[in-house]
Amino acid sequence: MPVLVNGRAGQLDPLDRGLQYGDGLFETMAVRDGRARFVDWHLARLADGACRLALRLPDQEQMRAQIAAAWPAGRGVVKLIWTRGAEGRGYRPPVNVDPTCIAAGFEWPAWPAAAWSEGVRLRYCQMRLGRNPLLAGIKHLNRLEQVLARAEWDDEGIAEGLMLDDRGQVISGTQSNLFAVIAGQIVTPALDQCGVAGIMRRAFCAWSALHATAVVERSLQPDELETAAEIFMTNALIGAWPVRELAGRQVPAGPLAVRFNSWLAAQG
Amino acid sequence: MPVLVNGRAGQLDPLDRGLQYGDGLFETMAVRDGRARFVDWHLARLADGACRLALRLPDQEQMRAQIAAAWPAGRGVVKLIWTRGAEGRGYRPPVNVDPTCIAAGFEWPAWPAAAWSEGVRLRYCQMRLGRNPLLAGIKHLNRLEQVLARAEWDDEGIAEGLMLDDRGQVISGTQSNLFAVIAGQIVTPALDQCGVAGIMRRAFCAWSALHATAVVERSLQPDELETAAEIFMTNALIGAWPVRELAGRQVPAGPLAVRFNSWLAAQG
Repeated sequence: MPVLVNGRAGQLDPLDRGLQYGDGLFETMAVRDGRARFVDWHLARLADGACRLALRLPDQEQMRAQIAAAWPAGRGVVKLIWTRGAEGRGYRPPVNVDPTCIAAGFEWPAWPAAAWSEGVRLRYCQMRLGRNPLLAGIKHLNRLEQVLARAEWDDEGIAEGLMLDDRGQVISGTQSNLFAVIAGQIVTPALDQCGVAGIMRRAFCAWSALHATAVVERSLQPDELETAAEIFMTNALIGAWPVRELAGRQVPAGPLAVRFNSWLAAQG
Repeated sequence: MPVLVNGRAGQLDPLDRGLQYGDGLFETMAVRDGRARFVDWHLARLADGACRLALRLPDQEQMRAQIAAAWPAGRGVVKLIWTRGAEGRGYRPPVNVDPTCIAAGFEWPAWPAAAWSEGVRLRYCQMRLGRNPLLAGIKHLNRLEQVLARAEWDDEGIAEGLMLDDRGQVISGTQSNLFAVIAGQIVTPALDQCGVAGIMRRAFCAWSALHATAVVERSLQPDELETAAEIFMTNALIGAWPVRELAGRQVPAGPLAVRFNSWLAAQG
């Protein structure tokens, strides 16, 4: 599929603020049978991010049309980027500028089925996440911390890296959120200082409140994970990957990720 | 002047990692008589940044050629961006990929002469700088903190905003570095946790060691600025702007910025 820039196959103005400053937002969505999964929540997160950045976005129908155009049928992935456009030189954001939309469709990635059935192996990243409450939670285009964290390993047997913040608290994977069952509670790190509040994280929390127990969002120390009865990672494409090994230590298999993935699969 | 992408007038692949993740570096240079001022230092900072990001850059002669092509003669500004290219999907950086070069030339900005002769007014920004030692000092493309800080005011009488880090220490302006004369010492904030180590900051430190006293790099609290005998802001284009007012309080005029600007002007 060609990449669409403002709805047409094409290239990007190199003065676009998305390139110049990372001045924009993105969403990565799973498409099944031509429909983007959890699209309402993806658009809601975009709206939250746009509010935080004071970025003008078009109405939801136009955004849905961009998604559909990027991957019209079957199973795939759509990545949607909105930037503050190509006007203005210098950091000062121009007002009333039309945003730029980049919509790209990709084939569904070929992950090994064992990631779901047997679980994945995790490592800790050296790269820490800097904290900025005004940028925390939203999916903006400043992602160098994740790029450098992901550059730390090339062992294909390691599926994901855990990132701590500068205080040493557990925040997330490089491209996924973390859940752990600790002392009978389902815990996920609070994301008020850094990290991205993933759509599948939201979906798990909604599911869990109905089918298990309410998830506790709180600060989480690395040593707490050593006693976890179950750990799993979520993102919009993978659903939930059970963790079977963290930094060389075995992690028990648990029922939650499996139950959630079954529910998710039944949603189509 | 057209914007050059890899040496030719053109547009950018929207899958370029510079847009997708801010995975790249930039430099903004003053050009006089067709020569980029402090070009060796700009290229040295690029090399430092490339080392930090494990980004492959071409040799210096190729980089100089890009700069010259972007603004060949007279007085202007060149902004040079290097990204990790358009290969690879996901945060994991591809290896041995050719970087993308974007070179843009701009007319010299029309700043009022009073900024140098009378000094400028500063405010404090609400937006704080998150700390990440692995990204501190280099001029990478993740600049949302600066964009949102600059969005905080639209009073044209305020030239710059001071940014603190998340601990409340003074770091820099949104697009400039800060120097202050405190208790007889010339102080500039240490940039080992966040901030950009500006080329004019380096130039001032080099000049000061020869013509005044060695600059002290250290942590700096906002209340220390209330007793400063002189404050000024530096960047690669402006040289040094004396500060005459900080957050509504008058700041004394001092000799250092004036002497430095005279020296700088004499360099051509």
